[in-house]
Amino acid sequence: MPQSTTAPTFVGPVAQAEMRASNMGLILRHLRRNGERSRAQLAAETGLSKATISALAAELLDRGLVRDGDLVRGAVGRPGMPVALDGGGVTGIGVEVAVDYAALTAVTLSGTVLRETISPMDAAHLGVDAVLDRVASLLSTMLDSLRTAGVKTVGVTVAPPGVIDYPSGTLRFAPNLGWRQVPLVAELERRLGPGAPPVRLENDAKLAALAEYARYEGTEVRDMLYLTGEAGVGAGIIADGRLMRGWSGFSGEVGHLPLDPAMTQCNCGRRGCWELIVGVDAFLRLAAPDPADPLRDAAAPLDDRLYTLRRRAEASDPTTLAALATITERLAGGLSILVDVLNPRVIVLGGYYVPFGAFILPGLTAALAQRRMDAGSEVQLAVSELGMLATARGGALLALDDVFDNPMVVEPLT
Amino acid sequence: MPQSTTAPTFVGPVAQAEMRASNMGLILRHLRRNGERSRAQLAAETGLSKATISALAAELLDRGLVRDGDLVRGAVGRPGMPVALDGGGVTGIGVEVAVDYAALTAVTLSGTVLRETISPMDAAHLGVDAVLDRVASLLSTMLDSLRTAGVKTVGVTVAPPGVIDYPSGTLRFAPNLGWRQVPLVAELERRLGPGAPPVRLENDAKLAALAEYARYEGTEVRDMLYLTGEAGVGAGIIADGRLMRGWSGFSGEVGHLPLDPAMTQCNCGRRGCWELIVGVDAFLRLAAPDPADPLRDAAAPLDDRLYTLRRRAEASDPTTLAALATITERLAGGLSILVDVLNPRVIVLGGYYVPFGAFILPGLTAALAQRRMDAGSEVQLAVSELGMLATARGGALLALDDVFDNPMVVEPLT
Repeated sequence: MPQSTTAPTFVGPVAQAEMRASNMGLILRHLRRNGERSRAQLAAETGLSKATISALAAELLDRGLVRDGDLVRGAVGRPGMPVALDGGGVTGIGVEVAVDYAALTAVTLSGTVLRETISPMDAAHLGVDAVLDRVASLLSTMLDSLRTAGVKTVGVTVAPPGVIDYPSGTLRFAPNLGWRQVPLVAELERRLGPGAPPVRLENDAKLAALAEYARYEGTEVRDMLYLTGEAGVGAGIIADGRLMRGWSGFSGEVGHLPLDPAMTQCNCGRRGCWELIVGVDAFLRLAAPDPADPLRDAAAPLDDRLYTLRRRAEASDPTTLAALATITERLAGGLSILVDVLNPRVIVLGGYYVPFGAFILPGLTAALAQRRMDAGSEVQLAVSELGMLATARGGALLALDDVFDNPMVVEPLT
Repeated sequence: MPQSTTAPTFVGPVAQAEMRASNMGLILRHLRRNGERSRAQLAAETGLSKATISALAAELLDRGLVRDGDLVRGAVGRPGMPVALDGGGVTGIGVEVAVDYAALTAVTLSGTVLRETISPMDAAHLGVDAVLDRVASLLSTMLDSLRTAGVKTVGVTVAPPGVIDYPSGTLRFAPNLGWRQVPLVAELERRLGPGAPPVRLENDAKLAALAEYARYEGTEVRDMLYLTGEAGVGAGIIADGRLMRGWSGFSGEVGHLPLDPAMTQCNCGRRGCWELIVGVDAFLRLAAPDPADPLRDAAAPLDDRLYTLRRRAEASDPTTLAALATITERLAGGLSILVDVLNPRVIVLGGYYVPFGAFILPGLTAALAQRRMDAGSEVQLAVSELGMLATARGGALLALDDVFDNPMVVEPLT
């Protein structure tokens, strides 16, 4: 929006450092998009001066973010001195600390998954300190392994099992564990010791949305909604190709929308929350109405119980199919609200919805189409392709985004 | 997100033209932010070469987007040859075609409102053709007046009173007028004749959001929700400083969220729509329960009736205050959903809520605070400062955004 010149001016050294970082990021993104380029081509294609390109390319080389490319042959005159994105030597790591497992993923600057591991972990039984020890140990092992392979890790994003206080890097409250005020960033950084990459926290649904959106990047899909489906329900929103965080990081808190007509009391203090009727506990109660049914045994692995129910659905068991139909109808109620507000092109369902996609998506598509008012706003539905690894993958991508925004976050190689 | 080099490459002439346009936009924004700059300063501050700066500045001069600045004195050597944003010679125009008025606003590149007019107009009585004639006539008068003053208009944004089909520039359906399939862009461009600036359509709530957000630009407020309040209700969403349109332009369609417990039938085909219980008709029914009350007379000017009700509220009339308390409670129900999904910093209420701000905002603030789960997510409430002119103002700003994105949309002066 036009502003008068009363806006604060920022020129001089700060502005120049910002501009240098911004131009270095421009070059990195240009190389990611277009592949290897000579310095002369980069100057012509970006409008930056050849002197600027040379200086910035040298800084990127120093940081191991680009490498010398192959000499351009056949051209008249001197060879073009090409540079290329150096995909292999820099990674981001994402960590999901869930109630029953920890997942870690390392992704390189060029998008290759270098390491990926899921480790079962009973967080409630272990308690806070043992979980922190365990996660730090898994992280240290991965960092050491990457370091040994000559790979530099620029940052770690951790998705904790609860509500984040962003400014302090604290897990404010983990409803399924009863943990409160755990200074996760400080505790992990202390355990990792000096020299470890910086750690930050981000919400699991937002990270999963980032990871799921990677498959749509560069397509016409610029607006995507990702819905988690565990005990709780949350959303990650991609708007015009970017993660929408909201002003304090709390967008997508859809699990507590008041959509349960019975107005049941929720742990959050409100009544009638959506996740009480579409979360995995609601599904298990519908699919196995007898509380003595082993499927209701919280001590049994959830994956095994869901596998049993999927086999029942495939065998057309009426109770299971009726439960899925009810969940589908309740999903349609909440998702139609999100469609009205956000107008996404694609909705991706994660968590426990994934194995039941074939039973949920057709009815959900029909229900949303029926509510549709505008011919132009059909929404496509899909289930997550990344499953339990989506959140960790997204954490790695978020850590790498910093490098594209400002390559100077990577220290020069010594 | 990292992508491999299999992404389609775009280099050569197209990429270079895009890069030139992008760098011209960079210079324009830099001048808007920092004020007059010499070419040497621009080169140092943007990293572009002096030759590039000179060439692009010449193109911007040719287009009347910048002007020669005052000579920089006192420096050793040649004077700095400064350029400055030329704010006065280029405008965008926004037009709101409402059910009972047409509003037009012309804003310059540097944010000055040059022309602003509201013209009462009974659209239902006039019919489509007469409304088009009337709007085209008002537009022609404004365009002629600007042309005579030496001002170039780069584009016109029209907000129609209904649902837009964006690809065809058509008003698909105007619920309060019964109009269907009106090819607004084609009909207006035909009436304006050759040489007129391009016309496009945009939703009224989105434009009003853009205009209201102008006062927050450059502040910590990056996430804002604007709520219209007329017969219908709609939202405009600013996410991270940018207008969120959704994939087909239908974000913010919140008027038809299912929030009316009585599930009343709505014109849209659904039941229980929010606007049926928080729109101005619902308020008038609550504040004047007797259908014979002159306040319920749809033929009387709405502003006069609202003025009467505001005086009653100020005199503590119990019926009016009770009506406002009910509307406040119903607003809280829907807005709390939008807060959960979008996490805005500020919610701005427009339309008929504006004169009753003092009676609505305190209760609404308290209700939203009570529902709040996260300490970090308090939301601020405000009423629109632009009133009936917000939508037209936003239309002008949207037309101008194109110039900052790509200054080459402005033809060179001959």
